[in-house]
Amino acid sequence: MPPKPELASVKALVFDTFGTVVDWRNSVIAEGKTWGKEKNLKINWEEFADRWRLGYHPAMEKVRKGEIPWTRLDDLHRMILEDLLKNYKIAGLTEQEKVNWTHAWRRLHPWPDSVEGLTRLKKQYTIAPLSNGNIALMASLAKFGGLPWDAILGAELARHYKPDREVYVSAYYFLDLKPEEVMMCAAHSADLEAARQCGLRTGFIHRPTEYGNGHVRIADKAAPGDFDVVSESIIDLAQQMGT
Amino acid sequence: MPPKPELASVKALVFDTFGTVVDWRNSVIAEGKTWGKEKNLKINWEEFADRWRLGYHPAMEKVRKGEIPWTRLDDLHRMILEDLLKNYKIAGLTEQEKVNWTHAWRRLHPWPDSVEGLTRLKKQYTIAPLSNGNIALMASLAKFGGLPWDAILGAELARHYKPDREVYVSAYYFLDLKPEEVMMCAAHSADLEAARQCGLRTGFIHRPTEYGNGHVRIADKAAPGDFDVVSESIIDLAQQMGT
Repeated sequence: MPPKPELASVKALVFDTFGTVVDWRNSVIAEGKTWGKEKNLKINWEEFADRWRLGYHPAMEKVRKGEIPWTRLDDLHRMILEDLLKNYKIAGLTEQEKVNWTHAWRRLHPWPDSVEGLTRLKKQYTIAPLSNGNIALMASLAKFGGLPWDAILGAELARHYKPDREVYVSAYYFLDLKPEEVMMCAAHSADLEAARQCGLRTGFIHRPTEYGNGHVRIADKAAPGDFDVVSESIIDLAQQMGT
Repeated sequence: MPPKPELASVKALVFDTFGTVVDWRNSVIAEGKTWGKEKNLKINWEEFADRWRLGYHPAMEKVRKGEIPWTRLDDLHRMILEDLLKNYKIAGLTEQEKVNWTHAWRRLHPWPDSVEGLTRLKKQYTIAPLSNGNIALMASLAKFGGLPWDAILGAELARHYKPDREVYVSAYYFLDLKPEEVMMCAAHSADLEAARQCGLRTGFIHRPTEYGNGHVRIADKAAPGDFDVVSESIIDLAQQMGT
């Protein structure tokens, strides 16, 4: 079935990645539990993973407000880790171990529907991540999880973090398309609202378990009509886009 | 067989694209012949293709010297086309036709060994184009020819044209690697020499028919030892790199 007539102009789909394409929380928790065994640490790794992720917003805000110069997400992940190590009183990690822990964010498992959904979409559309993750991080995630991107776009190319408009504008600029030819796809309403402000089409993907049991944050929901497409998975999105 | 010991550090291979991965000349000639029939034009399309390609160096030089601001290769291709249309007294093309002709450079066929060679390399290495072509152009080429890149790097990300050193430096910067962990692969010695100056490893791929019968320019050759790898095709390169 072809997509809705107002979506016939769409030529490219760009994706938020953390939470939308990959399951950061369970992946980081699993790595943490391995480290815990190796290092004999008694730590609540669910909480550790949530704090690492929560630290990301204030870190990005420092960049967005110009308090610190442009810093890649890999390096923000490292800065937050240093704080966590202090807070949890984890001492004695080597530099190599710190790099390896930081790179847990390069080894996040895709949601079960992601690879199949993206592979279907790729037959008819250009697909790319439009994430706050830097290029090396996104390329590593793609190789780790088999994500079949056509290109890697995102914050590092725009030297701005979402939801700054420069990131959304860079997506259609670098693809040489019009805003309405690009659909931003995300599990997060604020990301989609910001993309819509820049003239992009919007595709919501529901990820009810992104934040686990919802102690820390509750996953966004959307009703039909809130966005151009409202879907339950990337396979569902692919179907609604006619692939 | 694993690669030579001095190449064991290589983690990524980045490729020149026009002439190295794709056969620009025969592809543009074939498109030209189609246009000739459609428009009833008596034109030597071999010469037309060669002039289009030759126009690319002076156009880039204008950008490199700062005579014109940063301009994407798609737009340089269009500027050169406008000159060719005047020189060949081809009149009456619509805007859409001019865009379509310009985009012949987005529809270049890979050399017969490119897809298989890249697919083999991709299993073990990160692979990306490091071309003067802009992102939209490179993404279109990849979709057209099935080139399995992990990411798209190159001039547009560095906002410099090769052989400016900023382009080679950007390759290892964006991949978060050391210079010696990246190998520049090209059919053109000057490109490899410039990459070597920046500390990258070098892989030569011989493309004897890039310039057709060699009227306009003769394809570069290399002897064993001139570069870290000297190969006859991307499949040969893949084999020498242990994949």
